[in-house]
Parts: sequence; C-alpha cells; structure tokens
Amino acid sequence: MKRIIGIDPGLLHTGWAVIESAGVSRKYVASGVILPKKNQELPARLAFIFEEVSKLCEGFKPDECSIEITFVNKNPKTTLILGHARAAAMVAIAAKEIPIFEYEPNKIKKAIACAGHADKDQIYKMVKMLLPLSNPKTADESDAIAIALAHSNMTKFI
Amino acid sequence: MKRIIGIDPGLLHTGWAVIESAGVSRKYVASGVILPKKNQELPARLAFIFEEVSKLCEGFKPDECSIEITFVNKNPKTTLILGHARAAAMVAIAAKEIPIFEYEPNKIKKAIACAGHADKDQIYKMVKMLLPLSNPKTADESDAIAIALAHSNMTKFI
Repeated sequence: MKRIIGIDPGLLHTGWAVIESAGVSRKYVASGVILPKKNQELPARLAFIFEEVSKLCEGFKPDECSIEITFVNKNPKTTLILGHARAAAMVAIAAKEIPIFEYEPNKIKKAIACAGHADKDQIYKMVKMLLPLSNPKTADESDAIAIALAHSNMTKFI
Repeated sequence: MKRIIGIDPGLLHTGWAVIESAGVSRKYVASGVILPKKNQELPARLAFIFEEVSKLCEGFKPDECSIEITFVNKNPKTTLILGHARAAAMVAIAAKEIPIFEYEPNKIKKAIACAGHADKDQIYKMVKMLLPLSNPKTADESDAIAIALAHSNMTKFI
C-alpha cells in the first residue's frame, strides 16, 4: 500500500488530495484547496503554499507525490507565476524527501478519463465514479484527486 | 544599519551576497554561488536551493532580501524554469519572515552602473569599485552583490 499526495498548484488555489493505492484498489483519504490571502504579495503567498503543503506532509505522511508538468501556455506571464506556485509546493515535498513524479496534463487525463483532452467536468465525473467517497467541491480539488489517481494507475503498488 | 541578502536565482547557479548598509556606507560581508548537482532532477535541485538559502539566512541573519523580477524572455521554457528556482529561494527567505524587495533588472543596473542596459562586465567593475573588499569570481556572484547594493541605494537605512 502506498499513500499518494496529488498537487494541482496555483497562486490563487492549490488543490491537493491524498489517496491510498494497493494493487487495483484505491481509497480516498482527504482533499482540499490551499487559498493564500488575495491581498498578499508574491513572497507571502509562496510561503503560505509551502507551509500548508509541509503541514499536509506532516499530517498525512504520503509516500509519494504526483504533480502536473506545467507547459508554457498562451500567456507566458501566467505560466511564470504558475511555475512559482508549483515550485513552492515542490520544495515543501522535496524537503521532506518524498519522491515527486511529474506527469504531462494529457497523460493524467488519459489515465483517468481515457481521453487526453477531457475537460474539467469529465475529470470531475470520473473522479466521483472512481472514488465515490470523495466529494470535490472545486475543479482544483477534483484535478488534484485525478493527479493522485493517475500516478496510482501508472504505477503498480502492492 | 541593515544587513541585506541579494539573490540572483538560477537552476544551475544561484548567486548570493550579503552586505551591510548604514547611511551612505556599504560593507561587504560575504558572497558565493549555490550549485545544485547537475545530474539531479528538478525537485532535488529546488530543495537544494531552498536548503542552502535557508542556511544562509540562519548564518547571516539578513534583515531584508533583494531579488530581481524575472521577465519572460525569448525562451518561455527557460523563463518557467528560472521562475521555479526563484520561487525556491523566495520561499526560504519568506518562511523566515524576512521582507523581500523585488526590482526590475534595468532598475538594478541603473542603480549600480547608472545605465539600465549595462552589461555583466560593467556591473562587475562597478561592484569592485563600490565594494573593493568583494572579490566576485563569477557573474552570478557579482550580480547578487549588485542586487543587494541596488536595494541599499534605493532605500535609506540609518
């Protein structure tokens, strides 16, 4: 059995999810969203993401972490900011020596919804179907569960 | 008197410098370069930058931090990676509640060399002139000293 933490990073909302994976069985443990205060400057927001992810690692003691690879999108400025948020979360995980596995967004979608271009609604529905006990309230949370599930599906844990 | 840490972030080399600033006087304290191992993956490199910057903060106890604002350059992929390294350093500083001041690259150059488009060699020469006791061995180190000096020149410390 392995405990996996999935992270969907963002400066405004960082989704997270913890699941357990053993053979073909998957168990939902917990999920949520880290919300830095909107009036805070970049360094304070990054520190908040780092501290919250550190607390999650201390509380849930995941064995492995799954995170999306960020691609340069139409707005390189947004990508740059996303990279900052992603790094803040990654540093928290890597500082605790938890192995991090990075997946391309379409590989995550394919592993969950069998379609590399599945939209957020499809992902949400698949997450609910695969883990009926999860009840994601936002797309960030449902994406984080999908990221954790994708890693468990692409790796065999006994 | 204030102690300032200047950071010039990068995934391959992160330059750092500590100076003291009081009125018009500036004193060189220390500088160097953080070099993550080349064969390491992204999470390990980010964790290394975070840990080394954390140690610098514990050792030198800076009052404030000065760092360049990253702009999206010709290669958005490189910018994204630079953003990750920058965030790893910023998280280390912000987690210790040290205020971070961000400056545009041309403002730093202007504050040091009186020219917004000064090249690395000009910056190096100005750093040597302003702080004769400093002996930067690389451009990353000399840039980090310049970043710290720029902050001290743009702020009045008594």
